[in-house]
Amino acid sequence: MLQKPRISKGTRDFSPAEVQKREYIFSTMKKVFRKYGYQPIETPSFELSSTLLGKYGEEGDRLIFRILNSGDKMLKADQEAFNERNLPKFSSSLSEKALRYDLTVPFARYVVQHQNEITFPFKRYQIQPVWRADRPQHGRYQEFFQCDIDVVGSDSLLYEMECIQIFDEVLSTLELPGFTIKVNNRKILNGIAEVSGESDRLIDIVTAIDKFDKVGEEGVIEELVKRGISQKCIQLIQPLFVLDGSNQERIDEMSRFLSGSDIGMKGLEELSFLFDLLKRTELKNGRLEFDVCLARGLNYYTGAIFEVRADDVKMGSICGGGRYDDLTSLFGLKGVSGIGISFGADRIYDVLNELDLFPETVENSLSYLFLNFGENEFVKCFELSNTLRARGISCEVYPVSTKIQKQMKYANERNAKTVLMIGENELSKDEITLKSMSTGKQETMTITDFLSQL
Amino acid sequence: MLQKPRISKGTRDFSPAEVQKREYIFSTMKKVFRKYGYQPIETPSFELSSTLLGKYGEEGDRLIFRILNSGDKMLKADQEAFNERNLPKFSSSLSEKALRYDLTVPFARYVVQHQNEITFPFKRYQIQPVWRADRPQHGRYQEFFQCDIDVVGSDSLLYEMECIQIFDEVLSTLELPGFTIKVNNRKILNGIAEVSGESDRLIDIVTAIDKFDKVGEEGVIEELVKRGISQKCIQLIQPLFVLDGSNQERIDEMSRFLSGSDIGMKGLEELSFLFDLLKRTELKNGRLEFDVCLARGLNYYTGAIFEVRADDVKMGSICGGGRYDDLTSLFGLKGVSGIGISFGADRIYDVLNELDLFPETVENSLSYLFLNFGENEFVKCFELSNTLRARGISCEVYPVSTKIQKQMKYANERNAKTVLMIGENELSKDEITLKSMSTGKQETMTITDFLSQL
Repeated sequence: MLQKPRISKGTRDFSPAEVQKREYIFSTMKKVFRKYGYQPIETPSFELSSTLLGKYGEEGDRLIFRILNSGDKMLKADQEAFNERNLPKFSSSLSEKALRYDLTVPFARYVVQHQNEITFPFKRYQIQPVWRADRPQHGRYQEFFQCDIDVVGSDSLLYEMECIQIFDEVLSTLELPGFTIKVNNRKILNGIAEVSGESDRLIDIVTAIDKFDKVGEEGVIEELVKRGISQKCIQLIQPLFVLDGSNQERIDEMSRFLSGSDIGMKGLEELSFLFDLLKRTELKNGRLEFDVCLARGLNYYTGAIFEVRADDVKMGSICGGGRYDDLTSLFGLKGVSGIGISFGADRIYDVLNELDLFPETVENSLSYLFLNFGENEFVKCFELSNTLRARGISCEVYPVSTKIQKQMKYANERNAKTVLMIGENELSKDEITLKSMSTGKQETMTITDFLSQL
Repeated sequence: MLQKPRISKGTRDFSPAEVQKREYIFSTMKKVFRKYGYQPIETPSFELSSTLLGKYGEEGDRLIFRILNSGDKMLKADQEAFNERNLPKFSSSLSEKALRYDLTVPFARYVVQHQNEITFPFKRYQIQPVWRADRPQHGRYQEFFQCDIDVVGSDSLLYEMECIQIFDEVLSTLELPGFTIKVNNRKILNGIAEVSGESDRLIDIVTAIDKFDKVGEEGVIEELVKRGISQKCIQLIQPLFVLDGSNQERIDEMSRFLSGSDIGMKGLEELSFLFDLLKRTELKNGRLEFDVCLARGLNYYTGAIFEVRADDVKMGSICGGGRYDDLTSLFGLKGVSGIGISFGADRIYDVLNELDLFPETVENSLSYLFLNFGENEFVKCFELSNTLRARGISCEVYPVSTKIQKQMKYANERNAKTVLMIGENELSKDEITLKSMSTGKQETMTITDFLSQL
């Protein structure tokens, strides 16, 4: 039966124009990462299930794509689990491998497995696809690229600073005109819970605060009430939702609020260090903002928390990250502090597209197309095409001497800059006719002149 | 329980040095592909099972990694199939998607699905990983990259020529000193079977001949006998196994042999066209050789057949390819001729490694490392690091003012070219000390001089 070609839901084909735009983003990132001393690693697309499962919470586990065992291993299918409708157990009996869900856990596995070959602090970047069995919907894909940098093996705040600088330099190099780099510190959040007398309700408080961007002040308060946070506490922390003024004013304000909390003051001190160090340099297009409501995956981060949003575009965060402690202890290597940030390539792509910021040169157009006027003319064009390529110039010869209209259509759709014509007439006089595809201007000259003016 | 980190068998981690060497190979290819007018596309890592299954023969199907359905879809597990030990059917009831097995079938799917957006002839390249459930063994991996170029929508021999030129230019740019580009034509193989009176035994004959490289003349004859080919036929074709002399001499010899076969003569004519056209240009390091015993996946190719081997290295073919007709008819688009070649990135990597051909500059070393002598010195180094990076120079500041010995060890292992030192003394005089990591030579100068000499 004839098969109508179809792609799996939630996945994408990338056309030549799209691949080239994506590569422009990736190569801009890589150039910046390398300048800051980050080195690339790559890990396999699939890992042992035991490496991935149980690392992302129950919801995460459900979204991990598992790979079916092959051959006789299928005989191990756990029929009892199936009959009991214990699908996770049934799945596990059918699968030993899974597609990576992010780059962070494979990175932790890499660091522990190769700890004796690695020099610490280990600064790495990694740009690879990840897979999630999310329900496909607009802007959410089952396969997408993550672009991560991490440093493990040092708790120096220098790396917090580097993260901020790298956000700024990557996005400025991509010519994003304005964006805000939000920064907070998990220790400040701890301090807030401590000061408001609800240390044991930290997660509830922060989960609510974290929604400020989406639901506003009232929404946050509603959420806090719903989560059973006391009125006294709510009244105490409510002013924090609308903290404004300069970063220094916010720090001063928080410094009064947190004065009773050692951990909170430690967080503020770390934040101040960054703002002070920043006075020694300049961000390009980015604006650094202390946002006390920023939490992002609280359970993960232990120090700085980052998030970047593009100005003038309605879209969620385009980058995020923060400091974490002991990620590698998942695999038995303890006491290793780390910090990492991630660039959302798909969202950055959408922002650049929306603001029309991709340089025209990104789409690798064809410099020259030779039209084909017949066998003898073709041979001459073939020779010349080799001369051009030897000089590093991209060109093509049209494969058959079909109607010129059809050949010109190809030139147009292939985005050729100039069409080259050697017909019977030109061939006899060792000449060549150039036609600019942008102006339509046409010019005939000797082949020698053509080659010398290239 | 503590988890000892382990990678799935048949997969690989790539260290910074390895990633950079691989990127050097990929970017060399891309540059050449683009110069010849090929454009990149990318397809998803997994496709609907129906797109992949049944396209690679029974053995291929077995090697396709399938992705387990998730959630309630698992309830569709075909218990009857399991009880009957019909594992393929059981698998199919558990899986709707599969990891791509090569780039060719997804490419065919892409062309048919996007036929209205594509300009033909469509020249594309694609460099992406593929997955095969092969038993892991030395040099054979379950995940590896394929690097393919294809042209569909034209049967012009120009593209055969381009394939030969691209083999030559990619491998010569990688500085492979010598390699042989073997070429044959499926029509010649058809002609041989026809002339020897065994047209209906084409596959048997060619499968046997194809083993010549491995088993030699006697081996091939044994194989032919085993496959029930007549003594008369064997005697007739035996001289072909040891065809030698120049390519022209081989063509002349085959021209006598095939004179009774129209299709055989057509194949020879196509081959001659290539050798004639080649006189109009020059291969760099490659040597083109007509090899009448070359068959490579006979059922697939319909015209030219290519294979490349590196001289002076014991290794199988490093590239291959050929012309195929009607690949897209798998998905309903008929009458589209195509030609494609593939570079074996892993083998090319191994050859370059074995012959020590990776340029030193491939491993992106760090230009400068600032040692850390304390807080005030650090701030000065931080400022300077920003100045350096603004000029595009890669550098790092060591994060803490620990023992100099430890910092120097880091400089060494990070392959830093020069170490920069601003101690208390330098700081007070606005000076900086440079130490070359290759010569050990040390020099102190003013920071102004340092910056102006960069």
